[in-house]
Amino acid sequence: MDDDSRLTRWDRRTDLALGIASLVFLGSYAVHVLAPGMPKAAHAFFLSLMYTAWAMFGVDYAVRWRLSGEGPGFVRRHWLDTVVLVLPLLRPVRVVRTYESIQRRHGEPRLPLHARVAAYSALSISLLGFSGALAVYQVERSAPNASIRTFGDSLWWTCSTLSTVGYGDYVPVTTLGRFIAAGLMACGLALLGTVTGSFSSWMLQRFSLGEDERRPPEN
Amino acid sequence: MDDDSRLTRWDRRTDLALGIASLVFLGSYAVHVLAPGMPKAAHAFFLSLMYTAWAMFGVDYAVRWRLSGEGPGFVRRHWLDTVVLVLPLLRPVRVVRTYESIQRRHGEPRLPLHARVAAYSALSISLLGFSGALAVYQVERSAPNASIRTFGDSLWWTCSTLSTVGYGDYVPVTTLGRFIAAGLMACGLALLGTVTGSFSSWMLQRFSLGEDERRPPEN
Amino acid sequence: MDDDSRLTRWDRRTDLALGIASLVFLGSYAVHVLAPGMPKAAHAFFLSLMYTAWAMFGVDYAVRWRLSGEGPGFVRRHWLDTVVLVLPLLRPVRVVRTYESIQRRHGEPRLPLHARVAAYSALSISLLGFSGALAVYQVERSAPNASIRTFGDSLWWTCSTLSTVGYGDYVPVTTLGRFIAAGLMACGLALLGTVTGSFSSWMLQRFSLGEDERRPPEN
Amino acid sequence: MDDDSRLTRWDRRTDLALGIASLVFLGSYAVHVLAPGMPKAAHAFFLSLMYTAWAMFGVDYAVRWRLSGEGPGFVRRHWLDTVVLVLPLLRPVRVVRTYESIQRRHGEPRLPLHARVAAYSALSISLLGFSGALAVYQVERSAPNASIRTFGDSLWWTCSTLSTVGYGDYVPVTTLGRFIAAGLMACGLALLGTVTGSFSSWMLQRFSLGEDERRPPEN
Repeated sequence: MDDDSRLTRWDRRTDLALGIASLVFLGSYAVHVLAPGMPKAAHAFFLSLMYTAWAMFGVDYAVRWRLSGEGPGFVRRHWLDTVVLVLPLLRPVRVVRTYESIQRRHGEPRLPLHARVAAYSALSISLLGFSGALAVYQVERSAPNASIRTFGDSLWWTCSTLSTVGYGDYVPVTTLGRFIAAGLMACGLALLGTVTGSFSSWMLQRFSLGEDERRPPEN
Repeated sequence: MDDDSRLTRWDRRTDLALGIASLVFLGSYAVHVLAPGMPKAAHAFFLSLMYTAWAMFGVDYAVRWRLSGEGPGFVRRHWLDTVVLVLPLLRPVRVVRTYESIQRRHGEPRLPLHARVAAYSALSISLLGFSGALAVYQVERSAPNASIRTFGDSLWWTCSTLSTVGYGDYVPVTTLGRFIAAGLMACGLALLGTVTGSFSSWMLQRFSLGEDERRPPEN
Repeated sequence: MDDDSRLTRWDRRTDLALGIASLVFLGSYAVHVLAPGMPKAAHAFFLSLMYTAWAMFGVDYAVRWRLSGEGPGFVRRHWLDTVVLVLPLLRPVRVVRTYESIQRRHGEPRLPLHARVAAYSALSISLLGFSGALAVYQVERSAPNASIRTFGDSLWWTCSTLSTVGYGDYVPVTTLGRFIAAGLMACGLALLGTVTGSFSSWMLQRFSLGEDERRPPEN
Repeated sequence: MDDDSRLTRWDRRTDLALGIASLVFLGSYAVHVLAPGMPKAAHAFFLSLMYTAWAMFGVDYAVRWRLSGEGPGFVRRHWLDTVVLVLPLLRPVRVVRTYESIQRRHGEPRLPLHARVAAYSALSISLLGFSGALAVYQVERSAPNASIRTFGDSLWWTCSTLSTVGYGDYVPVTTLGRFIAAGLMACGLALLGTVTGSFSSWMLQRFSLGEDERRPPEN
């Protein structure tokens, strides 16, 4: 119990810092990928930012492991945290959650449950898609017969993939690019189902409220 | 409360007028896009129709802001209304709602909840798809290496996009066209999930009614 | 009430005949499309079969209208029946229902609700897909630059469309073919959502039954 | 009742053996397809492994038929088992279930219901996809104008198919390959809906738990 409350306190204290670190990580990775021609010093600065943020995730993971009082089972039981530690580009997805939990602590008015889940998933998809587009672009741009050659193409390809439309006008051709794409499809589909399902529940709720439809329901 | 009831009264009084204005806006925009070779006077007439309708939306927004008694928070809290004001092509989606609320006031027999939501979403998708096809056609037709060259192509592309089939035989190639396409995917997917979910709930309801399946359930 | 019970009796008596007529219609249409080189007499025979079945649908519609005691509102209120009368290729979808209702009357053991809905929708999709593939094949095969040239291509295209995969290797190019395709997408998506949703509910049910998973739940 | 409990006992005793046989079947089939150039003796060994596993499935089917005390109706009533017997590549899908039921018997901590269903379906999709990729690769690689020429292409095609993205850059061209693809789409879509639905229910559950989100809910 004591460990648990210490864990909760740790989470509460580091939430904001880690959220900012996640955005910093994504931002400096974006700069690293999208501005390859910048001066060496600037490049080194952004790279160091990136690795600092990553180190912070590692420290957080270690402290939480320690505080949990669990043995090696922690790695397996918190496998999602482990995956996110290894692939920090997935980290920004947690930012939305952080924002939500901070907002709640401040007692701000909350949206109804379904709307909140829909908004959370929609934002997660956007961040995930942006990260995925960056990663695929970095991998594909130098491939000999790639079809994804600009970041715009990569973003467009991400939209068409995450919505499961899949035009096929731009397609990753490298093995690594395809692995990233497959991961993007998997995460995207799960989150998409959540957006869709919550949105549809929310609309049903609003419709079932007879007269005063303009005001969102309490729950 | 007083403000609120005045808001309700305003909504009730302007519902029909705004619904008609939405259809007029969509209609004159369609004429503007699809009949570029018509005489100058006619063109000016349809353009003025379009802008008049848009102005009406602006007035409605302003009055509702005023009546709500809220400060600048109104813009954020009613962000959907704000978006629809800026992108009036999304407006016709509300027409179905207007029709529904007018019908209810007249006490006409209502469909069961799920069927109503399914019908509402299906009609919204149709209007949204038509608007999207118009906008994409307008943007793409003059692009140098566009694949969408006729309005028929654009409609077909819209069908294949909104259903998430995505053949890829016709694809937007301009940046603006792709932005519209991404918006269409996002709205389409959310609404599609609603259609699908409600339809499926409705079928489950009908099946679970043992003997008298021909008659729709009350709720 | 009297009209109603007469309507019920009519339905009960004609269910089987109409179900068979639907299959006969689909079968003779298939022969008409797939065997264009057969002797004239055989062709005339299948055509007459087709039109006889269609006439039966018309008579059924008329009698039900009569028995319902409703005025012209019948056409609007039973719009689904009206659509099916005009597009009899949609008729076979009702066969599954007929089979189900006959089976129930004989008191045979019924599947759990969700499994039944899933099976019903899956069979409907299959029949719908087969009809759609036939219609698209008939329309496309003679188009100058068609990509769908054999019935096999058409079936493959239907699979890829109804599952919303949409490879785009075969695509309808005529206006009529695209209209049929759009209709297929709309019906297919709604039914697909029903299959998917019911199947998933069924699996949840089976999982939530703790120990005796081998036996299906009662409901 | 006696037959039933004997059936239960049979299931309990053979669960593990059959699960291992399923994986052995999949493994030796994979070797058979992916390493065509290996020495004859090794090839014969893997083929015999494959057929031994298949024979075990047949014996299990026969014993369960016998113990059920049912007549030929068994084939129809347990049609899923029958299908799996004929197409043993579908068998590995049951492995996950076996694992789950063994784990439960040992009283290990269980995930909440929705998470369990989501995990089960996700693993099933992976196994199904791997089997499908193998089968399509075997069929397509020797076709004259095939686009799927390596196992990597086949895996990539499977990802894009099961997620319903469907880029269309790789597509089966043989009739048998298309049949397998259609089966893959059908199974994949049903399972995908289950993954998506359960995942979304799980997220809703976690969100609706107010404060202590880190801990999974009991159910």
